[in-house]
Amino acid sequence: MSAAEHRGRFAYPELDRVLHERARLGILSCLIAGDEAVTFADLKGLCDLTDGNLSRHLKALEEAGIVALERDDKAGRPTTWISFTRSGRKRFLDYVEVLESIVRNSTTAKASRRATAPLPLGDDGVGSVPA
Amino acid sequence: MSAAEHRGRFAYPELDRVLHERARLGILSCLIAGDEAVTFADLKGLCDLTDGNLSRHLKALEEAGIVALERDDKAGRPTTWISFTRSGRKRFLDYVEVLESIVRNSTTAKASRRATAPLPLGDDGVGSVPA
Repeated sequence: MSAAEHRGRFAYPELDRVLHERARLGILSCLIAGDEAVTFADLKGLCDLTDGNLSRHLKALEEAGIVALERDDKAGRPTTWISFTRSGRKRFLDYVEVLESIVRNSTTAKASRRATAPLPLGDDGVGSVPA
Repeated sequence: MSAAEHRGRFAYPELDRVLHERARLGILSCLIAGDEAVTFADLKGLCDLTDGNLSRHLKALEEAGIVALERDDKAGRPTTWISFTRSGRKRFLDYVEVLESIVRNSTTAKASRRATAPLPLGDDGVGSVPA
């Protein structure tokens, strides 16, 4: 096996940049763990974000069609509820699958370090990768 | 349980920003999967990066003490070998553990959706989070 045969194996184009940002990953992890919708105030606390930061990230996620925001004032004052859209939930779970493969790859390497030779690099070495 | 008690539960401060960038995650996943060192040319192909991009990310990772670069010309021309530093390897594996907890959290939620109530939100609802 040569590196050329495995071109792009570690490129992870599926690692969705919109979701990969740390604060957004926190927001979405919180939503996936929870009930249908979470209030802005709870999300802010659970993710330890400022109003401004949370608003900014929610705007980006809403524009990308990943979350939906809904306002009501049932509690006597305006409350914003945040939930996954159907496609957003699917998109996040697809993203998590990529994370899972990275974790599996890394923990396997840790466990079997030097017991086998897991890296797909041949002995053609330097310059084996096509430009 | 209230959201206030779980303040910051989804903040993930351990999600090391230096490692979390997508291309760097690819580079480090490749290094962890492999042997001691990988050549610049192989890494470039496996991660599907340009010379300029790979150089830039390696510089950042080297400055952060995560990888070490070593040059030789044993193959008849200058070759750069990239490997983890001891602390860099540890730091990446710590980061992977955080990813693992995110994956576990998300896949558990997916599996047990609505069977239980995994989100630590109480019925104190809106405004329960201290400012």
